[in-house]
Amino acid sequence: MADIYDKVIELARRRGFVWPTSECYGSVAGFIDYGPLGAMLKRKIENVWRDFYIAREGYFEIECPTIGEESIYIASGHVKGFADKMIQCPHCNEFHRADHICDAHGIANSETKSLEELTEILKNLPCPACSETFDGSAVYYFNLMFQTTIGPGSQRTGYLRPETAQGIFTDFGRLLRFYRDKLPFGAVQIGKSYRNEISPRQGMIRLREFTQAEAEIFVHPEKKDHPNFERYAERIVPLRGIKQQECGGEPLEITMREAVSSGIVANEYVAYYVALTHDFLITCGADPKKVRFRQHLPDERAHYATDCWDAEILSGRFGWVETVGIADRTDYDLKAHSKQSGDSFTVFIPYDEPKKGWEKRIVPDMGALGPKYRGKAKAVADALSASKPTDKGAEIEIDGEKILIPPELYEVREHETEIRGEDVMPHVIEPSYGIDRILYSILEHSYDEEDVEGEIRRVLHFPPRVAPVQAAVLPLMGRDDLDTIALKIMDEIQNEGLIAQYDDSGAIGRRYRRQDEIGTPFAITVDYDTKEDKTVTLRDRDSMKQIRCDADKVPGILRDLIRGRISFEDLE
Amino acid sequence: MADIYDKVIELARRRGFVWPTSECYGSVAGFIDYGPLGAMLKRKIENVWRDFYIAREGYFEIECPTIGEESIYIASGHVKGFADKMIQCPHCNEFHRADHICDAHGIANSETKSLEELTEILKNLPCPACSETFDGSAVYYFNLMFQTTIGPGSQRTGYLRPETAQGIFTDFGRLLRFYRDKLPFGAVQIGKSYRNEISPRQGMIRLREFTQAEAEIFVHPEKKDHPNFERYAERIVPLRGIKQQECGGEPLEITMREAVSSGIVANEYVAYYVALTHDFLITCGADPKKVRFRQHLPDERAHYATDCWDAEILSGRFGWVETVGIADRTDYDLKAHSKQSGDSFTVFIPYDEPKKGWEKRIVPDMGALGPKYRGKAKAVADALSASKPTDKGAEIEIDGEKILIPPELYEVREHETEIRGEDVMPHVIEPSYGIDRILYSILEHSYDEEDVEGEIRRVLHFPPRVAPVQAAVLPLMGRDDLDTIALKIMDEIQNEGLIAQYDDSGAIGRRYRRQDEIGTPFAITVDYDTKEDKTVTLRDRDSMKQIRCDADKVPGILRDLIRGRISFEDLE
Repeated sequence: MADIYDKVIELARRRGFVWPTSECYGSVAGFIDYGPLGAMLKRKIENVWRDFYIAREGYFEIECPTIGEESIYIASGHVKGFADKMIQCPHCNEFHRADHICDAHGIANSETKSLEELTEILKNLPCPACSETFDGSAVYYFNLMFQTTIGPGSQRTGYLRPETAQGIFTDFGRLLRFYRDKLPFGAVQIGKSYRNEISPRQGMIRLREFTQAEAEIFVHPEKKDHPNFERYAERIVPLRGIKQQECGGEPLEITMREAVSSGIVANEYVAYYVALTHDFLITCGADPKKVRFRQHLPDERAHYATDCWDAEILSGRFGWVETVGIADRTDYDLKAHSKQSGDSFTVFIPYDEPKKGWEKRIVPDMGALGPKYRGKAKAVADALSASKPTDKGAEIEIDGEKILIPPELYEVREHETEIRGEDVMPHVIEPSYGIDRILYSILEHSYDEEDVEGEIRRVLHFPPRVAPVQAAVLPLMGRDDLDTIALKIMDEIQNEGLIAQYDDSGAIGRRYRRQDEIGTPFAITVDYDTKEDKTVTLRDRDSMKQIRCDADKVPGILRDLIRGRISFEDLE
Repeated sequence: MADIYDKVIELARRRGFVWPTSECYGSVAGFIDYGPLGAMLKRKIENVWRDFYIAREGYFEIECPTIGEESIYIASGHVKGFADKMIQCPHCNEFHRADHICDAHGIANSETKSLEELTEILKNLPCPACSETFDGSAVYYFNLMFQTTIGPGSQRTGYLRPETAQGIFTDFGRLLRFYRDKLPFGAVQIGKSYRNEISPRQGMIRLREFTQAEAEIFVHPEKKDHPNFERYAERIVPLRGIKQQECGGEPLEITMREAVSSGIVANEYVAYYVALTHDFLITCGADPKKVRFRQHLPDERAHYATDCWDAEILSGRFGWVETVGIADRTDYDLKAHSKQSGDSFTVFIPYDEPKKGWEKRIVPDMGALGPKYRGKAKAVADALSASKPTDKGAEIEIDGEKILIPPELYEVREHETEIRGEDVMPHVIEPSYGIDRILYSILEHSYDEEDVEGEIRRVLHFPPRVAPVQAAVLPLMGRDDLDTIALKIMDEIQNEGLIAQYDDSGAIGRRYRRQDEIGTPFAITVDYDTKEDKTVTLRDRDSMKQIRCDADKVPGILRDLIRGRISFEDLE
């Protein structure tokens, strides 16, 4: 029997939400097309995200290329480490992820096993494609970045970015100046990222080309209290901390304030974005009962992250799906780019008051050095000035040769100095969203079938704010001036900046069903009474209730309904 | 001396519009980063485009992957034909475009010359990089698509799309069903496209990764009258038709109605989008005196296009730059994909009334065929039924052998039938916009320097609708409650959906200059009078005029100013 996934995807294809890509050529796994309604839904989800991160948090959006040159991904570690363990079947030549085969055979902790161990384990297991055994074929690493060449003659290796984050890191210096050299500041990016999956088989959940929305927030390493923490301090979010996972308990339902004060979440910044993400997902239409946050266990957490939480959404087909990651990445990324590029990636933080300090200066005794080192005396003196002498003398290096200069050949003078501040490498808080997975989850959670008078009514219960079409305008008949009146209402609704659809074909009941199926929250019907008293019927998708209201008030009412200022019940 | 380009780019870098990409690694030619203000400006230009094409024209947006598999680009002709003629210097190994070297030496029509001719021409010319001669190095084709591999083991060749259009063409069948099988309909796409330029040296004008906004409008091949032509019929647009180019005259300044009726523009659809593009560019801030439309000459026009016009924008550095192309591409693209994929790509167009027609049916005389053709008699009979006989008989082919069957071996029977309609392959009208070039042009045309009291005032005169920051809120002092009042106004402006910036540092005059430089159209100053009478100063960027108005009316006034419902003069 068709499960919820099949039903949602059938509707999504038929009504123009999501299509297989380049279908006339057989499509390609890991790629999808967003049809007219899907692209609209996606844009609206992205705009809600912008409302949260740009308008409210005040982090500006930037836009970097999707193709990046090699140094960036050497620094970030992707050239070396962004790989899956893969095996090719010697019989049918199909490629598989080694961990997926282990999972299918109940072999635990495959992630932590070496290539040799996996080769041994898989030796006698059957290939999922042809059922022959792997017969000792070697498991090896496959890098998941799409590679290309920039310019002619294989001049320069380029990669399609595996995440949008690196563009923000490499722009750190420019961003710092834009934000006038003060911490904290943040920048966000929404755009395509790429992951050359070995053999993707989970539709919209595992894509080779996908959309990320990422925020990189640069904070002082010792100041991880979010300035607006109070906004979410009392919000209760289901948390599966490390302890709940180890003991198999239910998620904790505690406030963010408790989560931070009890040490379950590492700091206010991480807690704040856990709560904001919860708020965002539910605003977009995720079912609150099917959203939870799971903390990374120490052995799965990237070695540099101090804390990391995934927003998981429950899917009927795929189980709990990771859709958002919120991590305190410390100074790992900036440090890596600083090392690779030689740039500093620090912020000068002035002290409230300049501090007094003692500066040591080493003064070589040229009268003694000259005769002893002759032609090298100048180089020795320079090296001495930059050295850090101990009681035994100063160790310097001249032309690769290490020399110990005894204390009698120089003098250490101390003088008082004023230190105005210090260079600090910020830490990075990163909330990272997978837009396609979120969109699929919203489709699935919004989908409903009801028996209405013996017929199945299929509905997508989108929140009005993200619904691709926000209002339908339906003249009872396409004649007798009803169409003219309806088109005028259409025009006024569109002038309000709303997306409306006009439909005059078929019985009115069938037209309502058509709109229910694409999640249009409100329908306006123009009938013969409209010609008499200038009122129309306004129908609510979810309750199927109808009221009469003045035609000229419709645009204003719709705007208030969609912005959530009033509810349909207020109108009854 | 710095030309306008240098000045604009200096400001663009300093204030966060456009940055070199991955600058800490030396950046890469042909790629740029949009900083916070640039990304905002770009998004606003894209949204104005959406207002024109989606909200008003009613064409839905779709979103296809940027990576496409090979068949798509074999069909589209890009695998074979999307190439530049290139030469490598045998001395310094630098790559160059052959046509660029010809241009630099005044050699005309290099586009139409063969590889051999170019090799001969370039033989004694100096390399622009090292000045040595090319010494007969061969000119050859370099394909401009970025190539990659989808999945492991070089399984499948993929290309980064050279245009967004192909995704719309391959979705034709799905789109047709979405639009309920009726012509005309259209779909649009805004997204990244890629062109692996040989040696790009023109900043934002020649990018390897760029943003396109394309509309593909599918029309009946015999119905090229735009349903809303009247909207633009009287609009006057500067047109450099083929004749004006051949005779070197000034652009024609005629209405779109005249342009179509005189045959200068091929049809209403093309003329409509020429005018709409003119409207769009000026709405976004292009200087009307620096926009013109140039018709492709017969020898530069793609062989399949019946008419093609480029919107050209004048740049101080680059001359007339092509920013938009509007073409009637006929059925070239759909025919190509139909041939490559085997799908039909047609629309069934029902006749108003079913037509009566006579259908011929060929009935073989089996009694005569049997003895004559024995084992082959059945095959002959089948081939006969599908043949088109003449008076002399029916020519058929059996196992590669052509046989003429004389008329006495079959009978032709005619019977009346009803034909309900016909399958038609639509023609495509394509307006295609280069967003980055448009954005650069708007920066350049908006840029101005004025002498104000002995100091240079740098201003970006963006239309309020596209300005990245729409209002600045400036408390005269950051204390005495002025900041509290200003932050409250800030909040109200943001609730109106506008982007505002708060600035309390430095003298008020300097703050105005800072906002002028990023093109903020309006500034609100909160001073000590505000505390008394609840009024604020509202300043207009362009005239530098100031008025006083009630603080609580500011959000509404700003919204009306930005939507163009009122002008600043109305307030004086």
